[in-house]
Amino acid sequence: MTPVSSPLTTDLYELNMVQAYLDRGECEEAVFEFFVRKPPARRGFLLAAGLEDSLGYLETLRFSSADLDWLKRSGRFRDNLLDYLAGFRFAGDVHAIPEGTVCFGYEPLLRVTAPLPMAQLVESRLINIMHYQTLVASKAARMVLAADGKALSDFGLRTAHGAEAGLYSARASYIAGFAGAANVLAGVNYGVPVVGTMAHSFVQTHVSEIQAFEDFARARPQDVILLIDTYDTEAGARKVVELAPKLEKDGISIRGVRIDSGDLIAMSRKVRRIFDDGGCKNVIILVSGGVNEDTLQTMAREKAPIDGCGIGVSLDVSTDVPALDCAYKLQEYAGIPRRKRSEGKATWPGRKQVWRSYDALGRMVGDTLSVEGDTQKGETIIRQVMRGGKRALSAPTLTQIRDQAVRDLARLPEPLRRLEAFDYPVMIADKLKALAVEADRAMKP
Amino acid sequence: MTPVSSPLTTDLYELNMVQAYLDRGECEEAVFEFFVRKPPARRGFLLAAGLEDSLGYLETLRFSSADLDWLKRSGRFRDNLLDYLAGFRFAGDVHAIPEGTVCFGYEPLLRVTAPLPMAQLVESRLINIMHYQTLVASKAARMVLAADGKALSDFGLRTAHGAEAGLYSARASYIAGFAGAANVLAGVNYGVPVVGTMAHSFVQTHVSEIQAFEDFARARPQDVILLIDTYDTEAGARKVVELAPKLEKDGISIRGVRIDSGDLIAMSRKVRRIFDDGGCKNVIILVSGGVNEDTLQTMAREKAPIDGCGIGVSLDVSTDVPALDCAYKLQEYAGIPRRKRSEGKATWPGRKQVWRSYDALGRMVGDTLSVEGDTQKGETIIRQVMRGGKRALSAPTLTQIRDQAVRDLARLPEPLRRLEAFDYPVMIADKLKALAVEADRAMKP
Repeated sequence: MTPVSSPLTTDLYELNMVQAYLDRGECEEAVFEFFVRKPPARRGFLLAAGLEDSLGYLETLRFSSADLDWLKRSGRFRDNLLDYLAGFRFAGDVHAIPEGTVCFGYEPLLRVTAPLPMAQLVESRLINIMHYQTLVASKAARMVLAADGKALSDFGLRTAHGAEAGLYSARASYIAGFAGAANVLAGVNYGVPVVGTMAHSFVQTHVSEIQAFEDFARARPQDVILLIDTYDTEAGARKVVELAPKLEKDGISIRGVRIDSGDLIAMSRKVRRIFDDGGCKNVIILVSGGVNEDTLQTMAREKAPIDGCGIGVSLDVSTDVPALDCAYKLQEYAGIPRRKRSEGKATWPGRKQVWRSYDALGRMVGDTLSVEGDTQKGETIIRQVMRGGKRALSAPTLTQIRDQAVRDLARLPEPLRRLEAFDYPVMIADKLKALAVEADRAMKP
Repeated sequence: MTPVSSPLTTDLYELNMVQAYLDRGECEEAVFEFFVRKPPARRGFLLAAGLEDSLGYLETLRFSSADLDWLKRSGRFRDNLLDYLAGFRFAGDVHAIPEGTVCFGYEPLLRVTAPLPMAQLVESRLINIMHYQTLVASKAARMVLAADGKALSDFGLRTAHGAEAGLYSARASYIAGFAGAANVLAGVNYGVPVVGTMAHSFVQTHVSEIQAFEDFARARPQDVILLIDTYDTEAGARKVVELAPKLEKDGISIRGVRIDSGDLIAMSRKVRRIFDDGGCKNVIILVSGGVNEDTLQTMAREKAPIDGCGIGVSLDVSTDVPALDCAYKLQEYAGIPRRKRSEGKATWPGRKQVWRSYDALGRMVGDTLSVEGDTQKGETIIRQVMRGGKRALSAPTLTQIRDQAVRDLARLPEPLRRLEAFDYPVMIADKLKALAVEADRAMKP
């Protein structure tokens, strides 16, 4: 099995086009931008993510001799392409909206400036990384805003779409403000705090539930979280009350319990009462199973005694909006602005910048999309991050990216913080409109 | 970056539990089954997929010294766990519904029988592989049934959730009857036929659209598919008619065109007329952009002159049902049947088999779920595929799996073939019901 980090994780048509470009010597400078078209109402804002992994991809993209052999044996390509790939090193410029930054439809999250074959070759994988991480970070940000301070954890590896989705989800949700993830590899590769409790199978392998609780607590005394819903949740809670003093004698504290089924809010109240009445006031209540931003808002409104949530499929799969309409489009070639005019899919040409304005309280009030070099009011949010294939800025740490997200989520307009439908204004500047007219004139379709 | 094929692509709680099991010497034989709970109406049947990758995972699961070092440095685990992982080789039995087989809710797609820590350790990744591949195969099967013979291709890598999803989607959709995929790595790793045309950027880099068509045709003369919707689709089609005789003189045939925007059915008719009137009767019409099983049914009903479709996000993300409710549950431990009784999540205990009955025409009429060894009427569909960690059967080829899917899709009840809501009968046998009662009695929760 060739690993998915292979450069052959790409669409055949990228190689077809690079072959044609090389044949014709079409190697002028090209500018591509990755952006999301207008997202649906349940994504009133996006949180940029995926840039560091994208830059890592560009920095390390190499074709091995096995890769080249396979392409040669396919009989589809000529030696000029194979030679080009054998020596391939990404040497272009990259501009981007930094990770952890709030952004909106049509704002370019990433711009690649490079000779045409080079900029084309990287399309499929860049979209693949940027789309999914931004999708999950944007979903996770909604959950963090709705959580009212509860600690949220990514439990979604199992139903994530493949192993890489489970890994990227842990990273993207941590950026958005999650406390950690269950996926161990996210700890290894990104330093995301790894969290975990126990499964129903642990309880089921014991004939007695209370014995299962005791065994688990003694095996993992540093962080005892007991799963109490395998048979009867209230009965499970009463067993925790019964067990706690016995464990305390041996210096083991039960830190919390997890409820994974049923009416989580109603059950959390019953369990809280059992604990408070039974001298377990410090035992926290975690829940999982079907949690999303809507249920989090309900928990907050109803002041449910829930301290934290494990979130699975609604995060990793972003079930309500499992994909964003996005593109990596040619905006300029050989110094001439380009755009696509396909029905319903027209794009703005040129190299763009976003200017963002804030009110006196520091809340975002509107963005302006224009061509780079224009002089608009506000703070620019697109920065150069790679020059000639080398990083122009040192890579931020995951904590720095996460801090940026905290700052930006605090600056969202109030309706967006409340997850209400809200059309954040993104103005198209006159210079950009003029460039679109110019691009149309330059083409003779 | 540790690759996602690492054994650390797992949830922390699996390691927590294995630690506790080892501490307590709980290493009796455990039986876990992976199944999907009742799927929604738009998934009236499932197509099993993911088994070969799951078996490959089990066969090759090894902890490297780097993996073990990381776990040791985490400070969470004791030497007995680290020693266990250092020597880990999966040595259990696996029973499964073969890939390419139609199946239904609660039918176990996979059963693992192994000492408890071994069977527990592999949970997260097995679910991750089985869930996603079955999700996509089931979605793809709907599209194949709706396609009325059109060739379908997986174009979804870019918005798939990570690189592995793009790879697995190509495999799972090919099993279900797709003609191929754009993802090159699917060709390398699985031998899926790789397909690809051109992108809008190719047209946009040329000042003249017809020149772009000619350049592409000359660069890739063996398989000329031209993308004609960059500016104006009908104008693009007329340029194909203009160009065709010129290329024919040089022995190059235009095989087809692709339309990627607008009203695909209406436009395919206009383009077909332009081609037929212009002497291009053999030029085929491919479409992409927003195609799913519903649009495929409309295309078939309206007899649109469309020869093939590239399908992206609706396949790779399975947008209408982006996840299935599934589980890997303990069904037996130390010879005693087990089950979970959590609210809304109760499971059937024991080692199960499925018996399937057919009518005189060979169409499926109903399944019976019972305990292994029961004598029910019908054909059994669960087979042993691994014994003591070694394959019990030689691995089928992808073509054999695909042939199995063709056979099984032909045997679906007619309403399911038409993608109508239909509740396929899955009877629970008396012996299984009795075992559930026995399991409840055996536990003292």
